[in-house]
Amino acid sequence: MRTVHTFRDARALGSGCVGLVPTMGYLHEGHISLVDAARRECDTVIVSLFVNPLQFAPTEDLASYPRDLERDAEMVEEAGADVLFAPQLEEMYPDKPLTTVAVDLVTEGMEGEIRPGHFDGVATVVAKLFAGIAPDRAYFGRKDAQQLVTVRRMTTDLSFPIVIVGEPIVRESDGLALSSRNTYLDPAERAAARSINRGINAVAEAIIAGERSGTELERIAATPVNDEPGIDLDYATLADQDTASALLDLDRPAFLAVAARVGRTRLLDNVHIDRIDGGWVPDAGIRLDGPSILYREA
Amino acid sequence: MRTVHTFRDARALGSGCVGLVPTMGYLHEGHISLVDAARRECDTVIVSLFVNPLQFAPTEDLASYPRDLERDAEMVEEAGADVLFAPQLEEMYPDKPLTTVAVDLVTEGMEGEIRPGHFDGVATVVAKLFAGIAPDRAYFGRKDAQQLVTVRRMTTDLSFPIVIVGEPIVRESDGLALSSRNTYLDPAERAAARSINRGINAVAEAIIAGERSGTELERIAATPVNDEPGIDLDYATLADQDTASALLDLDRPAFLAVAARVGRTRLLDNVHIDRIDGGWVPDAGIRLDGPSILYREA
Repeated sequence: MRTVHTFRDARALGSGCVGLVPTMGYLHEGHISLVDAARRECDTVIVSLFVNPLQFAPTEDLASYPRDLERDAEMVEEAGADVLFAPQLEEMYPDKPLTTVAVDLVTEGMEGEIRPGHFDGVATVVAKLFAGIAPDRAYFGRKDAQQLVTVRRMTTDLSFPIVIVGEPIVRESDGLALSSRNTYLDPAERAAARSINRGINAVAEAIIAGERSGTELERIAATPVNDEPGIDLDYATLADQDTASALLDLDRPAFLAVAARVGRTRLLDNVHIDRIDGGWVPDAGIRLDGPSILYREA
Repeated sequence: MRTVHTFRDARALGSGCVGLVPTMGYLHEGHISLVDAARRECDTVIVSLFVNPLQFAPTEDLASYPRDLERDAEMVEEAGADVLFAPQLEEMYPDKPLTTVAVDLVTEGMEGEIRPGHFDGVATVVAKLFAGIAPDRAYFGRKDAQQLVTVRRMTTDLSFPIVIVGEPIVRESDGLALSSRNTYLDPAERAAARSINRGINAVAEAIIAGERSGTELERIAATPVNDEPGIDLDYATLADQDTASALLDLDRPAFLAVAARVGRTRLLDNVHIDRIDGGWVPDAGIRLDGPSILYREA
């Protein structure tokens, strides 16, 4: 594996079908599942690692976001990637960037409402990675479901010839969705955070049992979180997979997204609901059978 | 020459160094000078032709903008281009586009102030052409000086590996800068429009004579237009070539831009001022020695 720090070098190392896995580093098994998918489907696998200031609000955790390039480089190499693209701030933004890529409507609710400007930062940096590296395929986790909708729409609207692949959520053995931010949680917060997945699982069961009402599915997702002390629900929303707009009923491919705060940590989770052979099939991702690397290290 | 209507086909025809000349059609010798430059410097020359609705305000001349694909295709072929990319609206915007590429600061004054949203439309469609065609070089006329600044900044900010080339203004033999919109002018308006170039020429002479004051250079540019009946000045502004911000004095590479209205037609012109061998060198472009194709056809 080669580690490079400039777009020029990253681009030059791509040959054949190029797969890009954009990350902010401090990798876990969720990221590795993206590298695995890229490895199966592409000739060259490039993992980018950049903690993008544009997608953090001044009040958010940019300074404390976990960073460990050496650790990440080992994981990326072991996963079989060809290139780690780890640009410094000066490569990404030699001048103060004046250009913003903004995606309307799909960014209005949920995270877009709670984190104003967040998706502008995401769409801008992803467009920049796409423009500068020119991959054929790019891999994103479904945990950030609204981000995936935003990236898909930006890619189509700007005619990037890039296939966007969304991969299932990877979870701790007790159901907590993997996130680099999980490292912020103390044991009591970690226990409270499990309530999110209890709600997600209950939604999946309700769908299998025939529930189609958005209001009812949202109530089912919210209840375990609302009943748990030490965690505050931001939203539980049934949303369209294509537009991220809220749905009254489950009548098209959707996801039920939950966001909650535990102490100073925001956590996201969701279950995707696809239409397969005439039935509604919930997909909440996969569970590890032991602690993830985030907890083995802690 | 091949005429194609999809990004996929346009991209597939590019080999070696690919030069892109983005146009809105109804071509004239200004556009052809861009094709000539691309032909000298690139292996594959692609001319795009699309009247981009995003860069017209509802009150502007989208419906009446001159269109003649057959005429344009002949001119592009004769100029030696390899590919004419002429997408239909459905190829460019199969769905209502939700993504906007906006460039801050450089779009604030001059045209950006008079045509709100115009440069968002320009930056968005140019980013889309860059993403969908992936040229190595792209050619723009210097007549639209603020557009050139905007495109350069967007390209850098989004890390497109594309060299942006600005080519000198091409003028009628009496000095009027070529523009497809010149076809809107009746003979009296055409006569009034000449005052713009008289101001531009006076600026070039004043610079050679040593004038450095922005206010004075702007006054010199404005005077012939203000003295002429039947034409209304929008602005005469000395601006930075890199940022398009107004300059108090000529102390860096600059352009003096003039915009005016004649009847319902808006006309732009400018003189670029470069620092060469320690001196200030005005470049107002080149004049044809007879009427342009726009007037031979009229």
